Amino acid sequence: MPGPMPTLPFPRSGLPTPALVLDRAALARNIGRMAAFAAARGIALRPHAKTHKSAAIGRLQVAAGAAGLCCAKLGEAEALAAEGLSGLHLTSPVVAPGAVARLIALHRRSAGLSVVADHPDNVRALAAANAGGGPLAVLVDVDPGTHRTGVASAEAAVALAGEIAGAGTLRLAGVQYYCGSLQHIQGFAARLAAVAERTDYLRTVLAALRAAGHEIALVTGGGTGSFAIDAELGVLTELQVGSYVFLDREYGDCEPGAGDAPLFEPALFLDATVISANAAGMATVDAGLKALATDAGPPVVVAGAPAASRYLFMGDEHGAIVAEEGEPPALGARVTLQPGHCDPTVNLHDAYHLLDGETVVEIWPVTARGRST
Amino acid sequence: MPGPMPTLPFPRSGLPTPALVLDRAALARNIGRMAAFAAARGIALRPHAKTHKSAAIGRLQVAAGAAGLCCAKLGEAEALAAEGLSGLHLTSPVVAPGAVARLIALHRRSAGLSVVADHPDNVRALAAANAGGGPLAVLVDVDPGTHRTGVASAEAAVALAGEIAGAGTLRLAGVQYYCGSLQHIQGFAARLAAVAERTDYLRTVLAALRAAGHEIALVTGGGTGSFAIDAELGVLTELQVGSYVFLDREYGDCEPGAGDAPLFEPALFLDATVISANAAGMATVDAGLKALATDAGPPVVVAGAPAASRYLFMGDEHGAIVAEEGEPPALGARVTLQPGHCDPTVNLHDAYHLLDGETVVEIWPVTARGRST
Repeated sequence: MPGPMPTLPFPRSGLPTPALVLDRAALARNIGRMAAFAAARGIALRPHAKTHKSAAIGRLQVAAGAAGLCCAKLGEAEALAAEGLSGLHLTSPVVAPGAVARLIALHRRSAGLSVVADHPDNVRALAAANAGGGPLAVLVDVDPGTHRTGVASAEAAVALAGEIAGAGTLRLAGVQYYCGSLQHIQGFAARLAAVAERTDYLRTVLAALRAAGHEIALVTGGGTGSFAIDAELGVLTELQVGSYVFLDREYGDCEPGAGDAPLFEPALFLDATVISANAAGMATVDAGLKALATDAGPPVVVAGAPAASRYLFMGDEHGAIVAEEGEPPALGARVTLQPGHCDPTVNLHDAYHLLDGETVVEIWPVTARGRST
Repeated sequence: MPGPMPTLPFPRSGLPTPALVLDRAALARNIGRMAAFAAARGIALRPHAKTHKSAAIGRLQVAAGAAGLCCAKLGEAEALAAEGLSGLHLTSPVVAPGAVARLIALHRRSAGLSVVADHPDNVRALAAANAGGGPLAVLVDVDPGTHRTGVASAEAAVALAGEIAGAGTLRLAGVQYYCGSLQHIQGFAARLAAVAERTDYLRTVLAALRAAGHEIALVTGGGTGSFAIDAELGVLTELQVGSYVFLDREYGDCEPGAGDAPLFEPALFLDATVISANAAGMATVDAGLKALATDAGPPVVVAGAPAASRYLFMGDEHGAIVAEEGEPPALGARVTLQPGHCDPTVNLHDAYHLLDGETVVEIWPVTARGRST
């Protein structure tokens, strides 16, 4: 926990900065809207915990009906399982021998664990490591064309499914298909067309698997950019949405879908303090690239500065608030920023500071912060 | 600590990845070379701990002759002081009322603490908070023209020095002048010219301060890009060099100076594992933008792949190793990367894994990881 903290509850203005703040009511609305949408469409939810890395937020998602949580890394799953969460699904292959041993150990203590695979050598290693245990659920990861992970063809999917089904100590649990590169296509029509085209390919893979005699009940994937399209297309049976809980600037820039698709609202912010104000038209805040991830560009200035203000990264621990019109914030003033990309920004912080209005009411640890192994 | 770890010592190949690895011998050589240079030139060293955030590395620097350590944030100084380090200098103004209270509390338990200021309101706040205590050492921070922090003119420097000297509970300890934007000018001649020009301005500020009757014994600043130039110009009395301990790609791209300036060598790396290898000419490793900072571009592939291989970020937890010629690494292979920018990359990790050859011999915590407040 960074620095000594006042006793809860305390005013937001007393929070040491830079501080990750989370609007509790907005978070609850976002979780509720996605849960209601999925329930109405009869599609399962297994929200991606890589966004929040938080046992507390995961519990809220499960309480709202989620089947479990997705994890990007084994370390994330270990951390969330230690907090009592179950139904954890690993969305990347677990390959190194030490990691495979940890996965099997986790499988033996955490109910409903599943993992993807995309290579027969990995399937054989998982099968051998799980000898003597209850079957481990393994999904065939199918590459949608980004070449990040996944088998490269329907033929490879069928061959891998055969390896899994025939391994004895594994259970063929379904297919994963995550079109990551399509999630941030800003125009809705273009995003719809791209996801529909890639879903046609998924249909051919599923048809080949079923023709080979494999029952594929679970088809998991999708994200905050595509979930409504995925639900409409009706091929995925489970959504791995993550960022909807916070809605960062990157997703906020995307045109939402039509129909009954819920709208989400920004819930995650970073509070910063002006520590220098000697230059005309700008002020320097105490939040730089160790408090805000840079990969999706700068955060949005949402409060504490004139409406047209912009944030510029100024190194590890500094940012400039540039006021295009009006007076920049004064020395000591508080400025609120909306992160460009929520997932890696959260991973920089040890804690969420929960806001009820302008009062900090709870502090939640970022349970799996830094758990990248 | 991410995940269970084998008992020390163990082979590098057994390290769960992604893992920050530190070549102990290269680190010692880098620390020794900078210390020898500073001793030969009669200039003090107060290395910047924002690079490593490590009590263990700070102790090595102090053992080699450093006067203390610089810290970018109060939280960093608190964490290092708790490990017994002293002579800590805060290189950014401490402004928020809660932070000022923490600073004074730290001043009362940590010998040789100093802080910069760049505004009379801040000086008055520091003076009031330190009532009844031993004088707090305050340096005038002078803006070299980047408008990040610092007073904007010689006149403002003189006025602020007067505030500090007249406050009663503060001690005017010197001047800070950090030309951050000049450190990465790649050509040595261009860097020399830029630093020399900015040092001419510093001379006018120092002359004005001395003409006003202020004795300025300490002039601190400089970085890994400018230290040899600063030593040659003879205006700075103390160097705040940070990155020389690790030498990231960004500094490696800079032409070193002539004369007796020491050369540094890469000491910090990230080990990763190939977790998917289904696409031609590339492989996917388990290290993405939660393991490697993106602000200075991709890391360099230094081992485990053909010589001409490049790394591409592929999201939070994935990167592509693209082999321009030859075969990409196979599933399960280990790849070693040199970070683009060491400071924010270190801040993503909880631990350094110290290598003696190909053996992990020690694990050092990143003491002040995430301490941005």
